[in-house]
Amino acid sequence: MGNKRLGTQTVQLGTPPVILGTAAIVGSKEGDGPLKDYFDMVVSDSMWGKDSWEKAESKFQMETVKRALTNTGLKPYDMDYVLGGDLLNQCCGTSYGIRELQIPFLGLYGACSTMALTLSVGAMLIDGGFADKLAAVTSSHFCSAERQFRFPLEYGGQRPPTAQWTVTGSGCAILGAAGSGPRVEQVTNGKIVDMGITDANNMGAAMAPAAADTLAAHFKDTNKQPSDYDLILTGDLGSVGSSILMDMMAEKGYDISKNHNDCGLMMFDLERQDVHAGGSGCGCSAATLCGCIYQQLQKGALHRVLFAATGALMSTTLVQQGESIPGIAHAVCITA
Amino acid sequence: MGNKRLGTQTVQLGTPPVILGTAAIVGSKEGDGPLKDYFDMVVSDSMWGKDSWEKAESKFQMETVKRALTNTGLKPYDMDYVLGGDLLNQCCGTSYGIRELQIPFLGLYGACSTMALTLSVGAMLIDGGFADKLAAVTSSHFCSAERQFRFPLEYGGQRPPTAQWTVTGSGCAILGAAGSGPRVEQVTNGKIVDMGITDANNMGAAMAPAAADTLAAHFKDTNKQPSDYDLILTGDLGSVGSSILMDMMAEKGYDISKNHNDCGLMMFDLERQDVHAGGSGCGCSAATLCGCIYQQLQKGALHRVLFAATGALMSTTLVQQGESIPGIAHAVCITA
Repeated sequence: MGNKRLGTQTVQLGTPPVILGTAAIVGSKEGDGPLKDYFDMVVSDSMWGKDSWEKAESKFQMETVKRALTNTGLKPYDMDYVLGGDLLNQCCGTSYGIRELQIPFLGLYGACSTMALTLSVGAMLIDGGFADKLAAVTSSHFCSAERQFRFPLEYGGQRPPTAQWTVTGSGCAILGAAGSGPRVEQVTNGKIVDMGITDANNMGAAMAPAAADTLAAHFKDTNKQPSDYDLILTGDLGSVGSSILMDMMAEKGYDISKNHNDCGLMMFDLERQDVHAGGSGCGCSAATLCGCIYQQLQKGALHRVLFAATGALMSTTLVQQGESIPGIAHAVCITA
Repeated sequence: MGNKRLGTQTVQLGTPPVILGTAAIVGSKEGDGPLKDYFDMVVSDSMWGKDSWEKAESKFQMETVKRALTNTGLKPYDMDYVLGGDLLNQCCGTSYGIRELQIPFLGLYGACSTMALTLSVGAMLIDGGFADKLAAVTSSHFCSAERQFRFPLEYGGQRPPTAQWTVTGSGCAILGAAGSGPRVEQVTNGKIVDMGITDANNMGAAMAPAAADTLAAHFKDTNKQPSDYDLILTGDLGSVGSSILMDMMAEKGYDISKNHNDCGLMMFDLERQDVHAGGSGCGCSAATLCGCIYQQLQKGALHRVLFAATGALMSTTLVQQGESIPGIAHAVCITA
C-alpha cells in the first residue's frame, strides 16, 4: 500500500492517483478574463437556457462532468463515485446537476474549498483501493450566490472594496488509480479556523488564517519549504486575503512571496473587470485548477503545485445572529 | 489490505473498522419516546441556554462529540478527522459546533442520510490507512429545520398526515482501526433517485425509492438476502415511506417485511406523541444508531444490522421553482 500519515494532518498517498483529465466551463465574464484560453467552453447566457440561476448552475455542473468524461474517453458508468458539492443551500447545484448521471454520489461541503476537499477525499478513496476511477466536481454562479448570501441583484447594492466576485463556472477532474497525467501525491485537510471576522463582504480576511494554518501544517508535516513548489495556489483569497496570508506565513517563518498566486487573482483582470478584491466561489478555484493549472502541468510549464483551496463556512442565518465566519482550507500536492 | 469492490456500488472493508464508542443526546420529546433509556443525555431546554435554535443545534453537536470522546476515553487530538454535516444551510450546525475541537474537518452533505455517509466514508479512510481514529457526527433540530424548510413555527400551520417530525438531537460514533466493538464490514453508497415528488411534507415518499435502490444494490452486490440481517434499519422514511419501501422491495424480489424497521418509527410513539408519519432529520437516524442500536449490538441482542440512512436532497429554492426532490440512501453493514 505505502500510504502513510505524515505529522498531524497530512497523508502521503502510496500510489498517487492520476488526474486523467479535466474540464472547465465558465460564464462570459470569466471567459473575458486572463485565463480565457484554458476553458473548455464559455457560456454567454448566464441562464444557459434555463428559467433560473440555480437550474443554470446545475447545468454548468452536469455539462462540466460530461465534458470531463468526453475529454478522458470515459462514460458515467466507468465512475465508481462522483464527489461534489457547491455553495447553494443543500448543495443543490450538485444534487440536481448530477442526478441524471446515476453514479454513486458522495456529497461534500467545504464552501469555496470544495474542489480541494473532493480531490483530497477522492485521492484517498482511490489509493485505498475503494475506487478505480471517480469524478470530483464543484461549481458556483454569481447570480445564485449573490442573492443567497448577500443582496438581491435587482437591489443594485454598492460593493465594498473588500468584496469578491463569485465566479460563474464549474470544474471537474477525473481521478484514476492508473494512467498518465499529473498525480495527487499528498493531501493536508484543514481544521476550522475562526478569527472573528463577521463581514460577509470580506471573505478573504475570514479565510486567510485558515489558509495559513493548513499551509504551515503541510510544510511542517512534510518537511518541505515553499521553494519546493513551482506554485502555491490558494483559492479564493483575492487581493485582501492574499496580502494577509503573506504576512501570516512570514510570521510563521515561511516566505511564500515568490511563488504564491491565488485563483481569485488569476481568474479576472482586477482593474479592467471591476471585480474589486478578485474572484471567489467554488467554481473559481475549480475552473482555474481544471483549466489553466492542469494544462500547465500537462505541458511541463509547472511541475509541483500546492493547491490550497479555502472556504468561508459562512451561514447567513448565524451571521445575522452575530456569529463570526469560520474558515477552512484543504491542500493537495499535485506533481506533473 | 484485503478490501475490495463488490459489484457496482459496494465496498468490502479488508480490516473492518471498529465503532469504539458512541454518544447520543436528544431533546425532551425524543427523551419521552420509546428509546429514552438509550440516550446519554436528554436536554429539556430546546435552546440549551443559547439565544437561537441554530446555536443550540451546534451545541448539541459539540456536546455529543465530547461525550463520545469521554465514553471512549479519547481526546480531540486523538482524532485524525471529524466527518460531519447537518441539514442547516452551509451545514452550520456542524461547522459552528465542532470548530473549537480543532480536528481536521471533512464536511459532508447527505441530508438525513448523513450519518451513514460519514460512517461509510470514515470506514474507508480508516481501512485505507489514512486515519487511525475519527469521529462521525451529525445533528438536527426541530425548530431550526422547520423554519428553514417549511414554515415559521409561530405561524402554527397544520401539518398533513404525511409530514414527519424533525428530531432534535445528535449522534456521534468514534471509529478506530483496532479495538473491540461492532465493526463496519461493508458500505454501499447510493445514487440519486428522483421519482418526481414535489411535496416537502412528504419526505418519506421522496426517499423510499432511493432506499429501495441502495438496498437492492447491496443485496445484489454482496449476494445476500434480507434474512442475512437481524435488522434492516432505514432512516427516516416514517410510516408512509416505509410502506412504499416494502412494496418496492417486494417488486424487486426482496421480502424485508420480517426484519425491517425505520428510525423514524422507532424514535417516537406515533399515536401518543402526535408526530404524524414519524421522526426525521439527520439526528433521528444518528441518535437511534448511536443510542439504541449500538447498545443492542454491544450486548448481543443484535448481530448483523444493515443501516441504510436516507436523505431528501431538497432545496427550498428549487422546490419553489417547481423542481422535484432528489433522494439518496447510503447503507452500512455493521456486525457485532
